[in-house]
Amino acid sequence: MDFKSFIRDVPNFPKEGVLFKDITLLLQNPNALKETTSALFELLEGQKIDKVVGMESRGFIFGPLLAQKLNAGFVPIRKPGKLPSETLSETYDLEYGTDTLEIHFDAIKKGDKVLVHDDVLATGGTANAACKLIERLGGVIVQCNFLIELIFLNGVSKVEDYPVKSLMKY
Amino acid sequence: MDFKSFIRDVPNFPKEGVLFKDITLLLQNPNALKETTSALFELLEGQKIDKVVGMESRGFIFGPLLAQKLNAGFVPIRKPGKLPSETLSETYDLEYGTDTLEIHFDAIKKGDKVLVHDDVLATGGTANAACKLIERLGGVIVQCNFLIELIFLNGVSKVEDYPVKSLMKY
Repeated sequence: MDFKSFIRDVPNFPKEGVLFKDITLLLQNPNALKETTSALFELLEGQKIDKVVGMESRGFIFGPLLAQKLNAGFVPIRKPGKLPSETLSETYDLEYGTDTLEIHFDAIKKGDKVLVHDDVLATGGTANAACKLIERLGGVIVQCNFLIELIFLNGVSKVEDYPVKSLMKY
Repeated sequence: MDFKSFIRDVPNFPKEGVLFKDITLLLQNPNALKETTSALFELLEGQKIDKVVGMESRGFIFGPLLAQKLNAGFVPIRKPGKLPSETLSETYDLEYGTDTLEIHFDAIKKGDKVLVHDDVLATGGTANAACKLIERLGGVIVQCNFLIELIFLNGVSKVEDYPVKSLMKY
């Protein structure tokens, strides 16, 4: 399937000068939704996964679809104050300022084989923080996979310790 | 499956006096994730659905799982400024102040049969605003379904024009 044909370019979103890759046309097409899940699944080449970790909030879309297909559990990583039980948090640098992500303490067991999933790999700050949280809980990262990788932002350099796969590259 | 056995009560979250129903233990259990999707699917009793609409951000978890099982598309409803293309918005009252939800103009076609899904039906404000957005775009709401309904908040009164089903009631 030509996945890129379902991606809509939106200029100047969320700010001036940014060309945003909109995945909503892909999501609303039943066949594209199904084929995308299968293609992300195939990126794993049969490796066993215990937990799929998805980042708030667009990582919540294909994360659970992948988890179900892999017969794994789904674990959300969220912005501060959103997860109700005891959390571990990781703060990382943005272009201006910092951001923080949280995971539940009991979400990953020592030795769990983990797939990290998000819709877009941009600068890699979010993915890097997610990987740190998972490793602090004793999880083993098998792969980081993304729908879209924005090559020119070189986010792979932030997750170079792990296998990284993306369905579409720009 | 005893779905309620996977729900963790978290007292005083997000604020003093609230007993929060945490679904993360259900999500991280592969079997519970699968069985929950099937049970939500069965609430539809075979009715045809073109689009599953899920509300940011926990509606993004089972919304796409249901969409895939129903051979439907998935449509996100989001907080203001998050959807990149042209949107329709609906503002609704909260206990103090107001909140706004947005949907893409091109997300629903006239006559589309729509399932509205969210994790929790509380006061019903979000669900009501979502239904209004869908109907303004010409969609036909077949059902509103929820993982959890907090009966004492009487949210069903806000969506009384539509069939409402919930997997767990408290």
